[in-house]
Amino acid sequence: MTTDTDILLRDLSDDGILRLTLNDAGRRNALSEAMMTELGGAIAEAGENPDVRVIVLAANGPAFCAGHDLKEMTAGREAGDRGRAYFTRVMAQCSGVMQGIVNCPKPVIAEVTGIATAAGCQLVASCDLAVAAESAKFSTPGVHIGLFCSTPMVALSRNTSNKHAMEMLLTGDMTPAPRAAEIGLVNYAVAEDALTETTMEMARKIASKSSMTLATGKRAFYAQREMPLAEAYDYASQVMVDNMLAHDAEEGIGAFIEKRAPQWQDR
Amino acid sequence: MTTDTDILLRDLSDDGILRLTLNDAGRRNALSEAMMTELGGAIAEAGENPDVRVIVLAANGPAFCAGHDLKEMTAGREAGDRGRAYFTRVMAQCSGVMQGIVNCPKPVIAEVTGIATAAGCQLVASCDLAVAAESAKFSTPGVHIGLFCSTPMVALSRNTSNKHAMEMLLTGDMTPAPRAAEIGLVNYAVAEDALTETTMEMARKIASKSSMTLATGKRAFYAQREMPLAEAYDYASQVMVDNMLAHDAEEGIGAFIEKRAPQWQDR
Amino acid sequence: MTTDTDILLRDLSDDGILRLTLNDAGRRNALSEAMMTELGGAIAEAGENPDVRVIVLAANGPAFCAGHDLKEMTAGREAGDRGRAYFTRVMAQCSGVMQGIVNCPKPVIAEVTGIATAAGCQLVASCDLAVAAESAKFSTPGVHIGLFCSTPMVALSRNTSNKHAMEMLLTGDMTPAPRAAEIGLVNYAVAEDALTETTMEMARKIASKSSMTLATGKRAFYAQREMPLAEAYDYASQVMVDNMLAHDAEEGIGAFIEKRAPQWQDR
Repeated sequence: MTTDTDILLRDLSDDGILRLTLNDAGRRNALSEAMMTELGGAIAEAGENPDVRVIVLAANGPAFCAGHDLKEMTAGREAGDRGRAYFTRVMAQCSGVMQGIVNCPKPVIAEVTGIATAAGCQLVASCDLAVAAESAKFSTPGVHIGLFCSTPMVALSRNTSNKHAMEMLLTGDMTPAPRAAEIGLVNYAVAEDALTETTMEMARKIASKSSMTLATGKRAFYAQREMPLAEAYDYASQVMVDNMLAHDAEEGIGAFIEKRAPQWQDR
Repeated sequence: MTTDTDILLRDLSDDGILRLTLNDAGRRNALSEAMMTELGGAIAEAGENPDVRVIVLAANGPAFCAGHDLKEMTAGREAGDRGRAYFTRVMAQCSGVMQGIVNCPKPVIAEVTGIATAAGCQLVASCDLAVAAESAKFSTPGVHIGLFCSTPMVALSRNTSNKHAMEMLLTGDMTPAPRAAEIGLVNYAVAEDALTETTMEMARKIASKSSMTLATGKRAFYAQREMPLAEAYDYASQVMVDNMLAHDAEEGIGAFIEKRAPQWQDR
Repeated sequence: MTTDTDILLRDLSDDGILRLTLNDAGRRNALSEAMMTELGGAIAEAGENPDVRVIVLAANGPAFCAGHDLKEMTAGREAGDRGRAYFTRVMAQCSGVMQGIVNCPKPVIAEVTGIATAAGCQLVASCDLAVAAESAKFSTPGVHIGLFCSTPMVALSRNTSNKHAMEMLLTGDMTPAPRAAEIGLVNYAVAEDALTETTMEMARKIASKSSMTLATGKRAFYAQREMPLAEAYDYASQVMVDNMLAHDAEEGIGAFIEKRAPQWQDR
C-alpha cells in the first residue's frame, strides 16, 4: 500500500490489523503538517474501511514521535500576525488528529519504541491501548522551551492521576516505560524483542471480535465517561438494549449457548 | 433469616454486619431476575434497617457472579418486539441494583472468590470497597459474544484508568486479582484462607463508627465526585457544618478530647 | 523573613524557592485559624511575588499537620447558634486555603514528614506535587470522632481511585507513605534522610523554567481537567496559541534550535 519513502507506512493484514508506521526517522517522526495530514487521513479512512478491524500505531527509528516540528512552527512566525493564524490552524489540526483516534470506531493500539515526547506522548495517551518497550521513554518537555504542553496534558491527564501528570508537565523529565505502566499511561512495558508480538497478539484478539460490537462499545465508553453516574447508566442501558437487538449479539449469544464459534455479520 | 435453599443468604451479626451471600452456584450466581429482585431488595432494606451498619457481599460456589442470565435473556427474545421491552426492563433493574449499592447509606464491601464477570464484575466495581482472594479473577467478556459490556463499564471506568478499563473491555481477558488490585478495581488481593477474616475485620472497623456519619460521608463522597472543584468545596463545606452540629460529632469530638470511647446516638 | 517563634517560617532562596515550614509543633501544626491565616496569606503573597518561582511546603515536628484544631472548634460551639456561623466561617477559610494552593500561579510541592491527617492530608492532596518520607503516614480519621472528612475527601478523591479514597475515609486507618505513593496521593516515598534533597532538586528543576509558562500551564491543567474532551481541546489549543506568541516561548524555542540556554523574561 505504501513505499519505503512514505512518511507513513500502511500495512493491512488478512485478519484486519492495519499497522500504521511513522516513517520519518530523519525528523524524529515529528508531527509535521504533512505527517498530521497523513496520519489523520489514514485513521479516518480506516474508520470507514470494513476490512480494518483494529489499528496498531508503530514507528521506525530511535524516536517514536518527537511532537510538533519546531522548525515548521518557527517558520510560521514570519507571517504578519506573528503566526497566530498559523498556530491556530496547526493546533486545530493536531487536536483533530488526536480526537480522530478517540472517535475512530476501530480500537487503536500504540506500539511504542524509543522516545515519545510532547505531542508524541499525547499520541500514545490518545490511543485506546498502549504497549511500550521497556527502553521506551515518555515526556512532556515543553516547559523546557517556554511552551507548556497544554494540549498533550488533555490526553495525559485522562490517563494518569493529577500528581503524576503534573510531575511530567512541571519538570519535563523523561518517564521510563516501566514507570509509565505504573501510572497508567501505557498498559504494559515489555522486553523490546517481545514488543511487536505482544502488541500483535492483543490486536489479533481484538480483531477476532465483532466490529459492530467494538464500535458500539468504544463510542459508548468515551461518551459515558463524561456523564454523571445516573445519566451514564441511562445511556449505557440504552446502548445495551440496542446492542442486544443487533445481529452479532444474537449470533454471539447463540453460539455461546450452543458452544460453537460465532459468525459475525461483517466477516 | 434465610434457609440454605434461598438464592440469597442473609446473616446479620450482633455488631451490625449484614453478610449477603449469593447462593445460586448452579447458575454461577447469575444476576437472574430473581437474584436481582432479592439482592436489590436486601440492599434497600438494609439501608433502612438501623441494626445494619455495614454490608458484606459474598458468594458461594466457584463463581462470585457470572453476570446476566443469558438463557433468560435469550428467552426474552421470543416477544413480538424481539425483546426490546424485556431487555429495557432488565437493564433498568440491573442498573437500579448497582446504583442502589452506591446510594445505600450503609458502606458495602465485596468479598470476592472465584470469577466475577460482566455484570458480576460491575457488582464488585459498584461496591464502596472490595477485597478479593488472590485466586479470584475479573473480566468484562461481553465482547466475546457480540454484546459489549456497556453497563459494566460505567462502574469499571469509575475505578480504573481508561487504558486499564479499555484493555478489559476490548479483549475480554481475565484479570487476576493481584492485577485488579494494582489497577484499582479492588482494594486488596489476599490469600484465600485470609479473605473472610480480612473483609470482616474491615467490616467490624467500619461498623464501630457512627452510622449517621458513615451515611453522611458516603452520600457526600459520590455527590462531590461529580462536581467541579469549587462547587465540590462549597457543597462539602456545608456537609461538614451540618455534620459538626449533629449529636455524634459533638459526642465524638468530646470523647476524643476527654480520651474516652464515644457513645453514638444509634447504639 | 521570620523568627523561630513564628507558626509559619518563610525562607526564600536566591533561585526562587520559597520554603514555607509549618512551625507549631506543640499543636501538631494544626490548621488553627491563625495558621490558616498565615498559610493562606503566604501563598497568596507568593503568587504575586515575582521572586518566588516555586513553593515547598514542609513542617517541623513529628506531625506534618493534624488537621483542624479541635479545641478551637469545640470552643466555637459556645455561640448562640451552637457554632453554625463559626463552623461555616472556618470551613470557608480552610477551603479557601486549599483552593488558594490549586489556584496559585506558582507550583506547590509538599515535603511530608510525620503524620498528615484530616485537613493535613487534604493539604498534601491539594499540592501539585508531593514527596514523603518513607516513615510518613496519611489518614482521614474524622470517622473515628463522628465527623466525616468531607472536605478532605474533595482533594483526596481527585488524586486516588474511588476505592482507595473510600478505604481511607471509611476506616480512618493510617496509610503508610509507600502505599500513598502507590495509590497516587504522593509522587514518591523516599528515605527520610533523602527527603529534603529530593524535594529541593525537584523544586530547583521547576524554578529554572519560565514562570509565565508554569503559571499558564498550571492554570490550564486544572481548568481543562473539569471539561469534556472536545471542550478541553478547544480551550487548551487556544492556550497553546497564546503561549506560542509569548516572549518566553519564542525565546525558548529559539534557544533550543540554537542549542543555547534560554533567557526568560522575568529573570
